[in-house]
Amino acid sequence: MSTYKAPVNDIRFALYDVLGADKTFAALGFADASRDITDAVLDAAAEFTETVLSPLNAVGDDVGCVYDKETGNVTTPPGFADAYKQFYENGWTALTSSPEYGGQGMPETLGMATTEMIQASNLAWSLYPMLTHGAVVALKTYGTDWQKKTFLEPLVAGHWTGTMNLTEPHAGTDLGLLKTRAEANADGTYSITGTKIFITAGEHDLAENIIHLVLAKLPDAPPGPKGISLFLVPKFKVDEAGNKGERNALRAGAIEHKMGIKGSATCVMNYDGAQGYLVGAPHKGLQAMFVMMNSARMGVGLQGLAQSERAYQNALRYARERLQSRAPKGAQLADKPADPIIAQPDVRRMLLSIKSLTEAGRLLALHNYIQLDTAEHASDAKAREDAETLTSFLTPITKACLTEWSIENTYNAVQCFGGHGYIHEHGMEQLSRDARITTLYEGTTGIQSLDLIGRKTAATQGAGLKLFLAEVEAFAKANEADPALAEFIAPLRAKAAEWVELTTGILQRAAKNPEELGAASTDYLFYSGYVALAYWWARSVAALKASSQTEAFKQAKLETARFYFARMLPRTLAHKAAIDAGAESLMALDAAYFGEE
Amino acid sequence: MSTYKAPVNDIRFALYDVLGADKTFAALGFADASRDITDAVLDAAAEFTETVLSPLNAVGDDVGCVYDKETGNVTTPPGFADAYKQFYENGWTALTSSPEYGGQGMPETLGMATTEMIQASNLAWSLYPMLTHGAVVALKTYGTDWQKKTFLEPLVAGHWTGTMNLTEPHAGTDLGLLKTRAEANADGTYSITGTKIFITAGEHDLAENIIHLVLAKLPDAPPGPKGISLFLVPKFKVDEAGNKGERNALRAGAIEHKMGIKGSATCVMNYDGAQGYLVGAPHKGLQAMFVMMNSARMGVGLQGLAQSERAYQNALRYARERLQSRAPKGAQLADKPADPIIAQPDVRRMLLSIKSLTEAGRLLALHNYIQLDTAEHASDAKAREDAETLTSFLTPITKACLTEWSIENTYNAVQCFGGHGYIHEHGMEQLSRDARITTLYEGTTGIQSLDLIGRKTAATQGAGLKLFLAEVEAFAKANEADPALAEFIAPLRAKAAEWVELTTGILQRAAKNPEELGAASTDYLFYSGYVALAYWWARSVAALKASSQTEAFKQAKLETARFYFARMLPRTLAHKAAIDAGAESLMALDAAYFGEE
Repeated sequence: MSTYKAPVNDIRFALYDVLGADKTFAALGFADASRDITDAVLDAAAEFTETVLSPLNAVGDDVGCVYDKETGNVTTPPGFADAYKQFYENGWTALTSSPEYGGQGMPETLGMATTEMIQASNLAWSLYPMLTHGAVVALKTYGTDWQKKTFLEPLVAGHWTGTMNLTEPHAGTDLGLLKTRAEANADGTYSITGTKIFITAGEHDLAENIIHLVLAKLPDAPPGPKGISLFLVPKFKVDEAGNKGERNALRAGAIEHKMGIKGSATCVMNYDGAQGYLVGAPHKGLQAMFVMMNSARMGVGLQGLAQSERAYQNALRYARERLQSRAPKGAQLADKPADPIIAQPDVRRMLLSIKSLTEAGRLLALHNYIQLDTAEHASDAKAREDAETLTSFLTPITKACLTEWSIENTYNAVQCFGGHGYIHEHGMEQLSRDARITTLYEGTTGIQSLDLIGRKTAATQGAGLKLFLAEVEAFAKANEADPALAEFIAPLRAKAAEWVELTTGILQRAAKNPEELGAASTDYLFYSGYVALAYWWARSVAALKASSQTEAFKQAKLETARFYFARMLPRTLAHKAAIDAGAESLMALDAAYFGEE
Repeated sequence: MSTYKAPVNDIRFALYDVLGADKTFAALGFADASRDITDAVLDAAAEFTETVLSPLNAVGDDVGCVYDKETGNVTTPPGFADAYKQFYENGWTALTSSPEYGGQGMPETLGMATTEMIQASNLAWSLYPMLTHGAVVALKTYGTDWQKKTFLEPLVAGHWTGTMNLTEPHAGTDLGLLKTRAEANADGTYSITGTKIFITAGEHDLAENIIHLVLAKLPDAPPGPKGISLFLVPKFKVDEAGNKGERNALRAGAIEHKMGIKGSATCVMNYDGAQGYLVGAPHKGLQAMFVMMNSARMGVGLQGLAQSERAYQNALRYARERLQSRAPKGAQLADKPADPIIAQPDVRRMLLSIKSLTEAGRLLALHNYIQLDTAEHASDAKAREDAETLTSFLTPITKACLTEWSIENTYNAVQCFGGHGYIHEHGMEQLSRDARITTLYEGTTGIQSLDLIGRKTAATQGAGLKLFLAEVEAFAKANEADPALAEFIAPLRAKAAEWVELTTGILQRAAKNPEELGAASTDYLFYSGYVALAYWWARSVAALKASSQTEAFKQAKLETARFYFARMLPRTLAHKAAIDAGAESLMALDAAYFGEE
């Protein structure tokens, strides 16, 4: 069985020493987010996730969810419901929500740090509360007064949970194709009819009510994505005063059998004239859904990070314990029959790959969440706007890179275990299977990559990239005289300059041939991710001097940074070459010639 | 459910048009391996695998093997035993074995082509006959006359199957640590006692007897790998005349619960004073086992290739059928609501990645098997020796690269399906889980990499590499005047020269610091694999002119070759940079500093 210890120390280093988040929280007016309080929150999250959620991770996979055909009910794995009750009773669902609706008003950045722990301790379980948060944000932004008054409090308190209903069998990436329809009732509500698939937490036994946010088309909808509206459809109807009433005309038609996250109920949802409420303006549903989707995309990025962290901890433990063969320079433990495999350079390569992608990946994500908090709470309008631009740019990188790296990291962790990694009881293969969903849902890596190069770069003339690189250059400038940083700052600056050139080249080619965007997209995404992590490794090293961490911790940071620059950053060479090759070799072959029908 | 159509046409192109294997077979004296016969064998294998084995692939995963604690018996999934009966009754187990023992004496190269189909149609099932082949080869080489007479015929006929018993709980890579012991009996047999794990097909219901080849230590064994002997231990004892007798003192103690290949029984084997026979000389067991291991390593490489082929076929079908969004240059199917996703550059990138790694990977493997046939059957001693050197060098590349690429390829195939790829019923996630074992068993990728750079390169002063590069240069020289090949030959030559430099650099550094070998090993392996495939793509293009394949087929080969050189070969840049970085960044950090205990 895999184990988990919340990396509170590394989170503190990232949050305070590297990012100075405590100062940012104060500047943004989070009066309650003083360092002693945020520290207490981190410790409490560590305790809850290590002792309550982590022990349920394996049983969630073994038992999974059970669907009852007769009733359409879903029973979650043993222990899940009780853990959820503890979770909301301890106030975790309310952590970052507005006090207006019973929330504790803490920064999203702090919420992220705790969410990482929740996801690492039990990814399948973490999906039940996850989408509630998106629903809260969407309702807060687009809901009517009555909707806010009625639904936000129980959602924030966690007695009710939320879902996102987008996908239909024939409409995933291309939501314009969806067929679920909404018809106006005389009382101002709507009747929703259609089938949705892949609905996470669409049905379960954790909460008293489930609030579905459902995309559907009104009868007068224009075709395509501009004809989509958003509806709130509760599992149990709610009266004017907010009291829970009879069952609505909707039910789970099935749950999916999946590769992993088996403790999470992925539902087919059938709406059969279910009563719903329009959220936001007619035909403007995608806009409202994007608010939820961005929140969910950041959250899924974190899931990748979380699985990587857990993978590292277990691979490291095994590499230290497993005695096999001798170290290349001769016996290290002469009194033992063999040395621990961490003595082997290639095992170290795998461990350092995971470590270097995960620790800097944490900074990538935290920094993105700081932009989220800044975009909402900064007093200065320009600061809010820049933060919004920056988080828009960083979100596809965060989502796609952290999840792609989780595939590599869980892969390498299994490799460290050798054949034992393939055996279920060690828990490593579960990590691989669970992580595997993260590059697929909330937009595949391909979709994130197109979002990055298209809407977030080409469409904004690189506004987000410019802001990020300005930050990189400001850091480089401020530290260029420090000899301890020279080995990092020179290559970082070179890569930053290359990133601009590469971007310009793609946009120029794309102006003539729109296929160039898609042809470059995924390699551009990875390129961006690797350069971003180089920045975070340089920042990590720069933060060591003033940090109160131990010498061992500091040395590990320095050497991992060196490893990253020496062995991981060069991956940009291959991605750059692939981008420079352009679209031709991808588009030359007729689709009919790819192989036999 | 995933489907499978044997790629007979591409196999023919590889075998005849590129490799001229028919001429090689004739030159090596395979009188029965004329083109009409080998063609008939390929067609028959295609039919058997498509109609008998492929339909059992999903049920094997769903039902898996069942272990009976009372009896120690294992029941294989429904249909497996019947398919195996058809398999041996049709003579497939005897295809490449010597006629002396009832075999058909066909080339191993042809056997490989059929084995690829067997593995692609049903990887879990394919493991039952697989290890028998290794046992046959080991017994043929090291067995006594009685052992050959008694065991080879039923093994070749397939009524009995073979296993390889190496691993113990504390001894995987490091076989020197094993504890299973063998004590001489008065009658010349031995009593074997100990526990082995991860024994593929250790117990099952397909065959009348199971012949275990077991590594164990004699009482006077020197310590470490030089004290290991090999024993033949049958499930049912066999009398002097070869008649099957009573049960031997061994049984399966459990079967493992694994991530995939669930239809394959992976057994814990308990030997409790079981009667066995020494194979080869005392303490020389590793030598004999290496014969089996090499055969198994090539076979596992093929497993990777096979999963990649099946992944491609299904991803391609889905990418052609799935209508979602519009092509970047505008609607292709204006009368449909959306275009097939194969119109998207990034989907094509994934498909072409799989295709380019798989088709050239097939040549890498076939060429290696031709060396195997040549090493055994060439009349010229130098030709035999060179072929032996070359196959030794190519085996770790074939094993590790084809399996690593199968991870990437099955990953990309799942990505093409989007969220549907994660759902069990589509069969794509099974491909991923099944493929996942291939980089672990028969030596992890790390072990193959060390074998390549150490025993196969450093220890031979690069003998294998020199032979391979001589072949590359002979090809380049012969075709340098062909303008159609210029775009491939120049970069191929450049990479070949760089490969030599890189090798020299590693060996020079390793002379001073033995950690340099392990530090370079995995990146060197990938580098080697990518350059080798560049050679096979250039050879494929060179073979087009004289080929009788269709124009569509030829255009696909040419454009896939171009894709490979433009977008895959540049991966060598990153691997080279990582190698050049040396061991320092891997070894600098004390093991205690990698993270909290």
